Amino acid sequence: MFVRNAWYVACTSDEVAERPLGRRICGEALVLFRDGAGRVAAMEDFCPHRGAPLSMGKVSGGRLVCGYHGLEMGADGRTAAMPCQRVHAFPAIRAYPVLERHGFIWIWPGDPARADAALMPVLPWGDNPAWAYGGGMFHVGCDYRLMIDNLMDLTHETYVHADSIGQKEIDESPPRTTLEGEHVVTARHMQDVPAPPFWRAALRGAGLADDVPVDRWQVCRFSLPSHVMIEVGVAHAGLGGIGAPDERKASSIVVDFLTPESETSMWYFWGMARRFRPEDAALTETIRAGQQRIFSEDLAMLEAQQRNLAAQPARRLLKLNIDAGGVQSRRLIDRAIAEEAALTTQT
Amino acid sequence: MFVRNAWYVACTSDEVAERPLGRRICGEALVLFRDGAGRVAAMEDFCPHRGAPLSMGKVSGGRLVCGYHGLEMGADGRTAAMPCQRVHAFPAIRAYPVLERHGFIWIWPGDPARADAALMPVLPWGDNPAWAYGGGMFHVGCDYRLMIDNLMDLTHETYVHADSIGQKEIDESPPRTTLEGEHVVTARHMQDVPAPPFWRAALRGAGLADDVPVDRWQVCRFSLPSHVMIEVGVAHAGLGGIGAPDERKASSIVVDFLTPESETSMWYFWGMARRFRPEDAALTETIRAGQQRIFSEDLAMLEAQQRNLAAQPARRLLKLNIDAGGVQSRRLIDRAIAEEAALTTQT
Amino acid sequence: MFVRNAWYVACTSDEVAERPLGRRICGEALVLFRDGAGRVAAMEDFCPHRGAPLSMGKVSGGRLVCGYHGLEMGADGRTAAMPCQRVHAFPAIRAYPVLERHGFIWIWPGDPARADAALMPVLPWGDNPAWAYGGGMFHVGCDYRLMIDNLMDLTHETYVHADSIGQKEIDESPPRTTLEGEHVVTARHMQDVPAPPFWRAALRGAGLADDVPVDRWQVCRFSLPSHVMIEVGVAHAGLGGIGAPDERKASSIVVDFLTPESETSMWYFWGMARRFRPEDAALTETIRAGQQRIFSEDLAMLEAQQRNLAAQPARRLLKLNIDAGGVQSRRLIDRAIAEEAALTTQT
Repeated sequence: MFVRNAWYVACTSDEVAERPLGRRICGEALVLFRDGAGRVAAMEDFCPHRGAPLSMGKVSGGRLVCGYHGLEMGADGRTAAMPCQRVHAFPAIRAYPVLERHGFIWIWPGDPARADAALMPVLPWGDNPAWAYGGGMFHVGCDYRLMIDNLMDLTHETYVHADSIGQKEIDESPPRTTLEGEHVVTARHMQDVPAPPFWRAALRGAGLADDVPVDRWQVCRFSLPSHVMIEVGVAHAGLGGIGAPDERKASSIVVDFLTPESETSMWYFWGMARRFRPEDAALTETIRAGQQRIFSEDLAMLEAQQRNLAAQPARRLLKLNIDAGGVQSRRLIDRAIAEEAALTTQT
Repeated sequence: MFVRNAWYVACTSDEVAERPLGRRICGEALVLFRDGAGRVAAMEDFCPHRGAPLSMGKVSGGRLVCGYHGLEMGADGRTAAMPCQRVHAFPAIRAYPVLERHGFIWIWPGDPARADAALMPVLPWGDNPAWAYGGGMFHVGCDYRLMIDNLMDLTHETYVHADSIGQKEIDESPPRTTLEGEHVVTARHMQDVPAPPFWRAALRGAGLADDVPVDRWQVCRFSLPSHVMIEVGVAHAGLGGIGAPDERKASSIVVDFLTPESETSMWYFWGMARRFRPEDAALTETIRAGQQRIFSEDLAMLEAQQRNLAAQPARRLLKLNIDAGGVQSRRLIDRAIAEEAALTTQT
Repeated sequence: MFVRNAWYVACTSDEVAERPLGRRICGEALVLFRDGAGRVAAMEDFCPHRGAPLSMGKVSGGRLVCGYHGLEMGADGRTAAMPCQRVHAFPAIRAYPVLERHGFIWIWPGDPARADAALMPVLPWGDNPAWAYGGGMFHVGCDYRLMIDNLMDLTHETYVHADSIGQKEIDESPPRTTLEGEHVVTARHMQDVPAPPFWRAALRGAGLADDVPVDRWQVCRFSLPSHVMIEVGVAHAGLGGIGAPDERKASSIVVDFLTPESETSMWYFWGMARRFRPEDAALTETIRAGQQRIFSEDLAMLEAQQRNLAAQPARRLLKLNIDAGGVQSRRLIDRAIAEEAALTTQT
């Protein structure tokens, strides 16, 4: 079950260029393409003529031309032309509200009448030269909610990412979960701890000593439908931690956009936004490569967990204090799905 | 659903030599082998002893010997011998009527009492030195009826085969579909058009100028259960097109025998028969290689179309004038299946 | 359907060392690990916290530590500790009776209260320097009962293993099957026959002439739940066959422990125990390599048979005299399963 009246990341901007892109989102096969002016359109990946995937076609004259028999599809899901055919009575295919912003293409799988650009997440680093951003994408064979659990409970870093960002002090510092309006926030603050390897490198990257004790923080913030932004960082110990002045800390925002592909698989758009040395492209690439390596460590675990849970669907899991972030996030999702179902019933 | 009282191509003659061949046809697992005299037999690929596939055995003394425990199967589906066993009461397995003709082995999956060699398609190029034939076989993951649609609507050449046999004039020349007794015929004639690359090569192969305008034709003929023969060719423009004298045209018959493997997969036996320079084996191979490359372009599209349709089984497709050949062919198939069902009910 | 109140081989001793091992047995996902003292434990491969497979964790301090969030599982299936958590109320996971003996780790998938070490098969060569043992393991995609049939009817050697241990005299010597208490015994004795290649090599290995006629024997013994021990050997002809003095024969025991993975797949632990030149490790390896090659010839046949039977589940197979060993063994299995069902109903 998915929240549908929401903006999901469908792809990065560079995934849709001259050629269309086919991608399944929330169980639906979509095609994305750019018209002659570079504007993005999204619709069903299903030619109304004979059912061929439109994503196997090409773009010509601002229209998506089916690669099988040449039907020309417009951005609105209506057939614009076909050689030797009158097309005005052809059935339309479903078009999806779509927006391009901050390097991503976002689609709204739900009721188009409710699509509202104002509901897009606000990304402070988007189009702001004071920030740098690097990231990537994984396909993961698990229910996207297992990834929410993963990101809202970072105690797993100690075990899954033992040699990069994990450290035993994470385990020893209980997190605190609060509900802030439509957001779930799980925060953990560690005082006077050694910096693990990833953060020692980040301190050096920020021009700070890397061999002194630090205060470290992790503030995970879940937003509907399935976005998790995590403020992470270290400051030399005793300077206020997350409140320390910028020049005395290395901090970033871990960016996680989770887009369901099906009930048991997802697209994982991950990245990191930072405010230190934003002009340093080599540093951006170093961080991106490190993050790719670290985040890939989660995949085998999440896919194995998915298989285990699918084999024993009736089994109940524990909900400990460390799980509160995931539990609360799932409650927001369940409530939103129930509200959408109520809307549909009224109609 | 398949027509069963009909001859299907099971394999080419050279696929069954010393070793037996296992192949699934119309949903049934068959084994084909040659007895001591070279005669072909076809039967269930299921040893009546313990269910091992007989196709994993070997041929000895004109019998098919099971590779597991040595049961010796005769061409009639009855066990002929087994070491230290009395076999007369062993249950028979189903044997299929089989014919070898024109380089193919044909089987009749339906009622053996109705099998009739006179119902075999007549192939004018079979065993006729005035013709040359070359071809090959593909396994395709689609309902065989999607391939019928494909072959009875050649407008797809413009898009799928753009750089070999496609040209925009195909799209611009509406075809005409007629029912001729038990056959569906879809014909398209183009006047005074440039020859695309494949046909320029064929003109040169026939010793004709390749840089002048041509008349081009495509006459697709569907026959039950799922054979499509297509007369194709070009003649120098103004000489009568398909009616031009042999020495002023390059023409061929595209041969397509479609054999269902299952509801969603098929064996595709394709080839080309020609009457010009039949003795030129190098030309036969050049044409065969070109055809293999061109026909392989259809596979990805058909398999993607199959997946799309399977995901949305309730969706209705358009039936345009260009689709009339496929639509009429499917009607013949549906009628034949209904007639077979009626026969079964009477029995 | 499986007999559950029985000891099955889960793995060889060396498969569980520092790292835990995950393996599915009788349809259940298990993890095996060694505690600090080297003792083996087996339990569900399912962390009670969030369902991660415990087999992806590591062993620390004698406990199995989940690789996701650090839950520490004891050998009894009860959570021993977890950072910052009180674990006494955590639900236990199922622990399985387990024994390590003769180079194998054995588990009891049924009622733990009925697990009894005295029910373990007695292996005369286990820990006895007068014997040598070598073996290996295959994963096979078939119902384990098809492997029982295979091992209790060695006429297949003539066909499947024609160039190593097969010979036509096997076919020509009908076996005799008897029920000996809880065991099924199928015996075949051949007099004055040539030795096939594998046995000529064994004669040489035993220091005996390999170019004289031999008496050959095969005595297959099935025991619940699915163990098959086969006494095999050759003696120079006329010396009493299986009863000939040790120094005039080459004989061995083929060891087969079959462990179901699922209804349609199994773990096949195979090997050979011998009493001649037990100290000759090179000979052990030569025999093991030959046996691996020979036994791998069965896999393709059994997996193809499995697919054939799955496609035609209603089809009845023949039960010839040569099949009596398998038929009787299956009866013991069916009876044991019925008895277990009755026990469960009483409870």
